[in-house]
Amino acid sequence: MLSGFLMDLGAEVRVDAAGNLRGLYAANPAGGPRLLIGSHIDTVPSAGAFDGVLGVVLGLALLEALEGRRFRFGIEVVGFSEEEGVRFGVPFLGSRALVGSLDAETLQKTDRDGRTVEEAIRDFGLDPRKLSVAVIGSDVIGFLEFHIEQGPLLESLNQPLGVVECIAGQTRLDVAFRGQANHAGTTPMPLRRDALAGAAEWFSAVEREGFGTDGLVATVGRVKVRPGASNIIPGQVEASLDVRHARDDVRRKAVDSLIGAARRIAAGRALQFQCSPILDHPAVTCDSGMTDLLERAMTSAGYQGPRMTSGAGHDAMVLASTVPTSMLFLRSPGGVSHHPDESVWPSDVAAAIETGLRFLAELEEEV
Amino acid sequence: MLSGFLMDLGAEVRVDAAGNLRGLYAANPAGGPRLLIGSHIDTVPSAGAFDGVLGVVLGLALLEALEGRRFRFGIEVVGFSEEEGVRFGVPFLGSRALVGSLDAETLQKTDRDGRTVEEAIRDFGLDPRKLSVAVIGSDVIGFLEFHIEQGPLLESLNQPLGVVECIAGQTRLDVAFRGQANHAGTTPMPLRRDALAGAAEWFSAVEREGFGTDGLVATVGRVKVRPGASNIIPGQVEASLDVRHARDDVRRKAVDSLIGAARRIAAGRALQFQCSPILDHPAVTCDSGMTDLLERAMTSAGYQGPRMTSGAGHDAMVLASTVPTSMLFLRSPGGVSHHPDESVWPSDVAAAIETGLRFLAELEEEV
Repeated sequence: MLSGFLMDLGAEVRVDAAGNLRGLYAANPAGGPRLLIGSHIDTVPSAGAFDGVLGVVLGLALLEALEGRRFRFGIEVVGFSEEEGVRFGVPFLGSRALVGSLDAETLQKTDRDGRTVEEAIRDFGLDPRKLSVAVIGSDVIGFLEFHIEQGPLLESLNQPLGVVECIAGQTRLDVAFRGQANHAGTTPMPLRRDALAGAAEWFSAVEREGFGTDGLVATVGRVKVRPGASNIIPGQVEASLDVRHARDDVRRKAVDSLIGAARRIAAGRALQFQCSPILDHPAVTCDSGMTDLLERAMTSAGYQGPRMTSGAGHDAMVLASTVPTSMLFLRSPGGVSHHPDESVWPSDVAAAIETGLRFLAELEEEV
Repeated sequence: MLSGFLMDLGAEVRVDAAGNLRGLYAANPAGGPRLLIGSHIDTVPSAGAFDGVLGVVLGLALLEALEGRRFRFGIEVVGFSEEEGVRFGVPFLGSRALVGSLDAETLQKTDRDGRTVEEAIRDFGLDPRKLSVAVIGSDVIGFLEFHIEQGPLLESLNQPLGVVECIAGQTRLDVAFRGQANHAGTTPMPLRRDALAGAAEWFSAVEREGFGTDGLVATVGRVKVRPGASNIIPGQVEASLDVRHARDDVRRKAVDSLIGAARRIAAGRALQFQCSPILDHPAVTCDSGMTDLLERAMTSAGYQGPRMTSGAGHDAMVLASTVPTSMLFLRSPGGVSHHPDESVWPSDVAAAIETGLRFLAELEEEV
C-alpha cells in the first residue's frame, strides 16, 4: 500500500535486501544528493497505529504536499524493517543495514522457531548477499525522522511538536540483595536481615537520584522477592535498574552513586549486594546544523516546541553514526504508546507537515 | 516407636479418633487428675528433626527420669496430629479435637486429592464418630508444651530456655498500590505514577513501625510488581503484610497506623491503595499460675531464661482456651527451623528435662 502511494507520487520504489521499503523522489536535476525521511514500519504486539509508521506516512505526505515540486536534492522515503527487535531480540535491523553494521553475527540471530535473520530475509524473497547494496553512500546529506513522542512531556507543555536534540544513553543493571529468610513471627526486628527492607530503602534512593538530577530518569521495573511467602522474611530480592540521560558522564555518575548507595545500605544491614551490567549504550546527539534548521522550520511554522531528549531508542540513533540526523517528535496524547490507545492529534500532524515543508525549503537554500 | 517407649514406661497407650497419640502414666492413687505434656508429631515438608516431636519425646524423657515415681496426678503424654495444616490447609486438627472444636465444617475440608479430614480419619483406621471421646474433661489440670523456639532470641541472649507467657496475635493483610505503567525512558520523573516507588516508601514505613513498637514484628514477605519489565515503570504492586504482637490493642493500632501511612503515601503520589484483611487472630495468654510455676522450676534448675512471646502458633494456643497452659522454649541454634539444619543442643535438652522434673515436683506440692 505504501509502495503504491509512493509510486503514485512519482517515487522510484524498491525493497532493499534488509526488507526496508525505499522510495526515491528524484532530485532536479536528477542524480543530485538525497535526504532520507522515514521511520520504522514494524511495531510491538498489542501496539497502536502510529508508532513508527506515522514517520513513514509523513514522508509520503510531504511528497504529496510538494505537488510535483522538486529540489536540488532527492528525497528518499524509508520504511525501516525490524526496529523493535520483537522477532530476533535485536532492534534496528533495518537501519543498521543502511549504515553497514548489519554484521554476520547479527544475521545468525534466531527467532523463537530457530529461524535466523538471514533465513528470514530469504523467506521474504530477498537476497542477503545484496545487503551491501542497501548501504547508503556519501550522496546522502541527511536523515529526518518524525515519530510520536511516546511520553507525556509535550502534552504537559501543551505543545504539538518537539525537536529531539539527543537520544539518551542508557545503563541497565541487574542487582540482588541477599539477607536471611526467616520466620516472620519468631524473628524480632533487630535480629532480621530482611533483603526487602534493604531493597526498599534503595528503591527510594533510586527515585531520589532521578528527581535530584535534571533530565535523569531512573527506574526499578522488575522485582522478584524470595521466597515470597507472607509469613517469611524475604531472604533475597532481585531487581532491575534502568538509568538514562542525555549526557553519558551524568548518567554514569548517577549509576555509580546508586551502586554506592546500595553497597552502603547493604553493609548497614548485613546484607550482600551484587550487581551485573546488562547494557551500557552511550547517548547519541543529533546533528547540530540539521537540528537548528529543523527548529527554525518549526518556529517559522508557528510552533514553540522545546528541544528535548528522547528517552527511547530510534532508527535516528543508528543513522546518526553516519549521516547528519535530526528528529521531530509529535505529541502523544496521554503519553500513551505501545498500546491500542496510542493516538495523535490531526492538527499536530498538520503542524509536522508544515514544519517538514519549511525544513525542505530551508535545506534547498543551503544545498 | 513412641507407643512402644510409652508402654515400656508403664503408660497406657491409645490413638484417639483424631489420630493423636496419647499415653497415660497413671496417678497414684489411680483415677486422680491429670497433667498433659506434649506437642505435635507432624511437621512440614523439607523439615528438621525437632519441630514438634521434641516436645513429645521430652514427655517420654520425663516419665523415664521419674524411674517409676508416681504423683497424685497422672501424666498424659500427647503427640498431636496435624498441627501444621500442610495436608488440609487447616492447622491444629489434633489439638482442636482435645478441646472439642474440631467441628463438622473442618471435618469436610479436603486435601489436594479431594479427600476430606473425615475420610482421612477413616483411612487411618479410626472412627470419626468417636471424636467426642478424644475431648478432655475437667480432670485435666493443665497442659505443658516443650517446643524449639524456631527463632533467634534465646541464642542471642545466650540462654538455653525461655518461658512463653503469650502467643502473639496476628494480622495478615493483602495490599495493592496502583499507579500508571509507562515507558521508563520517555516519562520524566515528575510525570510518573510509579506504584513501586510508593510501595517502597511504605515497606520502609512497615519496618520503622516494627522497630518503633516494643515487641512488634511487621513483615512484608510477598511482593508482585507488574508488569515487571526493566524498561517499564511499575503500574501495580501487590504485597502482603504480617503484623504480630502479644497485645491485641498494640497490634491493631500498628495495623491502623500502617494502613493510614499507605493511604497518605498513595494520596501524595496519585496512586490508588487497596487492602483486604486475610487473617485476624487474637493473642493467647498462657496461664499465669502455671507460667509462674514453670519459671520457678526453670530458675531452681539454674537457668535465667526470659519470659517471652511466641511469634508462631502452637498447640498450646488451642489448649489454652480450655486448660491452664504453659510452654517452655528450647534455644534454636541459628534460629533455624522448618529446615533440615534445624537442631537443638543436647545440654539444652538436659536443661529442659531438669526444669520439667522440678515443675512436676512443684505441681505435686500444689495439687
